[in-house]
Amino acid sequence: MSRYLDERFCALLPYVPGEQPRDRKYLKLNTNESPYPPSPRALEAAAEAARTLQLYSDPQCTLLREKLAALYGLRPENVICSNGSDEILDFAFAVFCGPSRPAVFPDITYGFYRVFAKKYGVPFREIPLRDDLSVDPADYETNGATVFLANPNAPTGLALGREAIERILRANPDRVVVIDEAYADFSGGSAAPLIADYENLLVTGTFSKSRSMAGARLGFGLASPALIGDLERIRYSTNPYNVNAMTMAAGIGALEDEAYTRANCRAIAENRDFLQSELKKLGFTVTDSKANFVFAAHPDFDGARIFAALRERGILVRRWDEPRIRSYNRITVGTREQMNVLLAAVREILEEMK
Amino acid sequence: MSRYLDERFCALLPYVPGEQPRDRKYLKLNTNESPYPPSPRALEAAAEAARTLQLYSDPQCTLLREKLAALYGLRPENVICSNGSDEILDFAFAVFCGPSRPAVFPDITYGFYRVFAKKYGVPFREIPLRDDLSVDPADYETNGATVFLANPNAPTGLALGREAIERILRANPDRVVVIDEAYADFSGGSAAPLIADYENLLVTGTFSKSRSMAGARLGFGLASPALIGDLERIRYSTNPYNVNAMTMAAGIGALEDEAYTRANCRAIAENRDFLQSELKKLGFTVTDSKANFVFAAHPDFDGARIFAALRERGILVRRWDEPRIRSYNRITVGTREQMNVLLAAVREILEEMK
Repeated sequence: MSRYLDERFCALLPYVPGEQPRDRKYLKLNTNESPYPPSPRALEAAAEAARTLQLYSDPQCTLLREKLAALYGLRPENVICSNGSDEILDFAFAVFCGPSRPAVFPDITYGFYRVFAKKYGVPFREIPLRDDLSVDPADYETNGATVFLANPNAPTGLALGREAIERILRANPDRVVVIDEAYADFSGGSAAPLIADYENLLVTGTFSKSRSMAGARLGFGLASPALIGDLERIRYSTNPYNVNAMTMAAGIGALEDEAYTRANCRAIAENRDFLQSELKKLGFTVTDSKANFVFAAHPDFDGARIFAALRERGILVRRWDEPRIRSYNRITVGTREQMNVLLAAVREILEEMK
Repeated sequence: MSRYLDERFCALLPYVPGEQPRDRKYLKLNTNESPYPPSPRALEAAAEAARTLQLYSDPQCTLLREKLAALYGLRPENVICSNGSDEILDFAFAVFCGPSRPAVFPDITYGFYRVFAKKYGVPFREIPLRDDLSVDPADYETNGATVFLANPNAPTGLALGREAIERILRANPDRVVVIDEAYADFSGGSAAPLIADYENLLVTGTFSKSRSMAGARLGFGLASPALIGDLERIRYSTNPYNVNAMTMAAGIGALEDEAYTRANCRAIAENRDFLQSELKKLGFTVTDSKANFVFAAHPDFDGARIFAALRERGILVRRWDEPRIRSYNRITVGTREQMNVLLAAVREILEEMK
């Protein structure tokens, strides 16, 4: 830290992304990437856009917003696009929170919420999940706070139903409720249809997971035109050309090939259910994940040891040292073949640890 | 503005990008884009990267930082990469300014500095340019403020020499001096060599102009490892994967083809000098621009009228309604052919206005 750093930022605790080691070839099941490449249509569109890369991208993301609006049954003025959904979340912490608008989110959730809150000096409270790691909607009804909920939650994979979301929206008419749907395409449920009735709802989404575009960085927000207007104010005060031309084109291409996305999501959901059922047979406790990852702990073996043993075998998964989830590993769901490689390794490891 | 917007942001005055109208085909000389496509090497690299777009990009931008360091005679720890150079400027206003660290910049310069200052609630002072629109370095020596200087400046195109920059650095040992070199490749001069001696220097650059990658969004900062560390803290608290994989690859490809960049910059500098000399023959006052644009006013004709007449003829340039420069138009330098089209239109317009 230099002596030039303003004191407001001296206590920042930056986000730590999942590791991307380069020392050997790993089976990467640690950052919830898709095992499938993007749609050929997305790649063609990106290549086409690259040919005029000397021109700025459309700061209004006109066509992409139209396509997203059509997908969700909304209008373009309900949509904002961003450089990954982290950027929308950052904007939301900036403009919808403040000294008199604290933030609330679960104690176990996407680790970036805490980082954003600290960055903007937003007071925040982390609400403990229930013992079974699920969110109790009642906890979010009377806080007078801006609510951030990942749905499905990460790293648990557990999802709230639409009625639960609606209860929270109804209880917080004066605060924004952000539903982070990074993993929603693997369960099929989006809160987006509620936008027509709740002007305080902001749904965020990403092309990183279900559309195989983690490397392209494309996120979006869906909300009432009033909330989108606020987010556009901060976007035009930050980086009006935040979405580059290749990514914008790839996103449009991907949305023109929704059959591809749906087929991939279906395959991943099947592999997830397969992996969960096989891990249960091996004695693991697994959450009822609706996402593209599995969250699993073994009652007899230490999570950190399983993590390390997988890593030695060239398989990367992810774990956290927080007390309530330290026995768990989060495993990204890949192809059936990858899941079989993982399961074979897990069987070997359990055998050795006995 | 919704009732959910935090009061700190109610007075935001977002940046207004140059217009990108779609009603007809224009000769676009309004946003300082390059008339040339990116290097074929950049395009190949981007297409190659797109094939594994399902994986996150390298959050450390390892190879790109190595290449940039080599280009500037620095080390990778002197380099940070960003989603356009606006993002680095945004970070710099966030972390190197504050209630007790005001910002100073010229009254006529890149309009985004004012936007960033307001966004972060940073007190700021706009220092008038001299009557000839040049920066007086002495104005930046005794402010106790974080200094932001575009060099060459926009929209004037006028550049400070290295000695002037060094004077400002020496006079401000306790404050960061940001030299925004978006247009420096067209004049050949960078302050980067001063980084070895001044830990308070931050140089920002972009691939938008000289490397024909405006649509790719790639910027960078060059500074002492201490300042880069501060910027990395905020980057990892904002958007660790801020540079997407295609853009990162394109940037690396572009840096492997510096001969292409140098040839384009040379051609643009020649066309700039040609355009300036032709406009002078027509009676225009032009600044001594070192950038890829010309800043020109006619003593006998209103700048807004010239702007409107060009627009009617399908030629877009840019102007501002600020009193000191309202007679000027800023014209992006393109190919010789484009400049001849522009000059023919200008001749016609002057003839009609007589």
